[in-house]
Amino acid sequence: MSEFAEFLQNDKFARYLNIEMLETGEGQAVGILKIEQHHLNSHNTVHGGAIFSLADAVFAAASNSHGPAAVAINVSISFLKAATSGVLTAQAKELSRNPSLASYEVRVTNEAAELIAIFQGMVYRKQPR
Amino acid sequence: MSEFAEFLQNDKFARYLNIEMLETGEGQAVGILKIEQHHLNSHNTVHGGAIFSLADAVFAAASNSHGPAAVAINVSISFLKAATSGVLTAQAKELSRNPSLASYEVRVTNEAAELIAIFQGMVYRKQPR
Amino acid sequence: MSEFAEFLQNDKFARYLNIEMLETGEGQAVGILKIEQHHLNSHNTVHGGAIFSLADAVFAAASNSHGPAAVAINVSISFLKAATSGVLTAQAKELSRNPSLASYEVRVTNEAAELIAIFQGMVYRKQPR
Amino acid sequence: MSEFAEFLQNDKFARYLNIEMLETGEGQAVGILKIEQHHLNSHNTVHGGAIFSLADAVFAAASNSHGPAAVAINVSISFLKAATSGVLTAQAKELSRNPSLASYEVRVTNEAAELIAIFQGMVYRKQPR
Repeated sequence: MSEFAEFLQNDKFARYLNIEMLETGEGQAVGILKIEQHHLNSHNTVHGGAIFSLADAVFAAASNSHGPAAVAINVSISFLKAATSGVLTAQAKELSRNPSLASYEVRVTNEAAELIAIFQGMVYRKQPR
Repeated sequence: MSEFAEFLQNDKFARYLNIEMLETGEGQAVGILKIEQHHLNSHNTVHGGAIFSLADAVFAAASNSHGPAAVAINVSISFLKAATSGVLTAQAKELSRNPSLASYEVRVTNEAAELIAIFQGMVYRKQPR
Repeated sequence: MSEFAEFLQNDKFARYLNIEMLETGEGQAVGILKIEQHHLNSHNTVHGGAIFSLADAVFAAASNSHGPAAVAINVSISFLKAATSGVLTAQAKELSRNPSLASYEVRVTNEAAELIAIFQGMVYRKQPR
Repeated sequence: MSEFAEFLQNDKFARYLNIEMLETGEGQAVGILKIEQHHLNSHNTVHGGAIFSLADAVFAAASNSHGPAAVAINVSISFLKAATSGVLTAQAKELSRNPSLASYEVRVTNEAAELIAIFQGMVYRKQPR
């Protein structure tokens, strides 16, 4: 297993939530979450924290794909449509990158390809390569 | 049990993560998360998704405390310091409210009272009272 | 002049900054700012407020293009690259829309088509059509 | 005039908008904007860009107060109440700071001390001291 694959495997929280990484590449990643009862909030829709966590996991995969450790410093997320069942897909892409800072956008969609949430995040690399 | 207490009890995701609501009042709430292994990310610090989820849970409690259902539409979160163990506390307060829209700030602190994350969220109420 | 053209003309602040609207359509708009001395900050790069204002103007044009008055309730902006001279272009597109709430993304680029800033904004319509 | 006073004086955009810095200190600043016709938008309320610019100016003053140049990398702003006339006041305070990154909150209020906007911003220092 590559160092990066081990890094992804080591995301205990993503595993606890059943977030599955489908593909990763330089500056990008795609992951899914199969909605289960324990992902729901008091309104019986998927909890904002579960949607955020899915988006955050692909954001981490995309931003750490280049090698040096990248940590999230800021995220803005807009919740556009409620989700209740099925599979959510999150897709991260890199918007910009310099050695210390980089910016990503993540789109979370449902099975009908409707936009559930849009997520914009920034990471910092202490030891840029 | 009051209707609001039932509402809080019904947050399946918060329960799955062991988020505990300590107190709630009109427009405010305090909750805690005892950090466990499964809250950690690949860097072995608390996952951004877990921190967000804790903040989101008290945000939901505070914004739904007035009665009418409030749904999150937008959140911005800044991660200021990594956390690795102990208990995280999130405290939500209302910044502004009109019948349809309201705005909240949540501070997440560690046991040393250091600021771990700051969260600014907005909700929408379809049927304002 | 159409009612919408008058609406755009009536943006006193955009005129004061020399923001020029190039095109508008349903849910979209493109505008430009020719950088002048008085747009610069203390670091002699374009002021964040000037970049935001350009993005905000196309955001307002795009979100008001459908007819009912739309007011900005939340914006997140990331500044990705400094700008010092030339022309900045901002392009707004609609990400989602329901009768009361809608979400837009604005990209601000320089003449080399490099991304200067990315802006994610939400509006509210009091009297949805 | 101190180096920092010169730095503030050199904000051409703040001067163009008539933003006035009332006080600055380590990690904090207060500034005002007297609303004029040319600050208004098409709805005849103060333009989001003008409110942002006021907040951004005190954010820049607070974050550059320590010496090393600090540049804004991300801001989230929520617009809570429209403003039409009088004087707006923006107050910045530091939430956290490490050598490279720091986080600030800015509150914009009207003359009735009502919250007009809340602004959360992050800066980066290339050459930390």
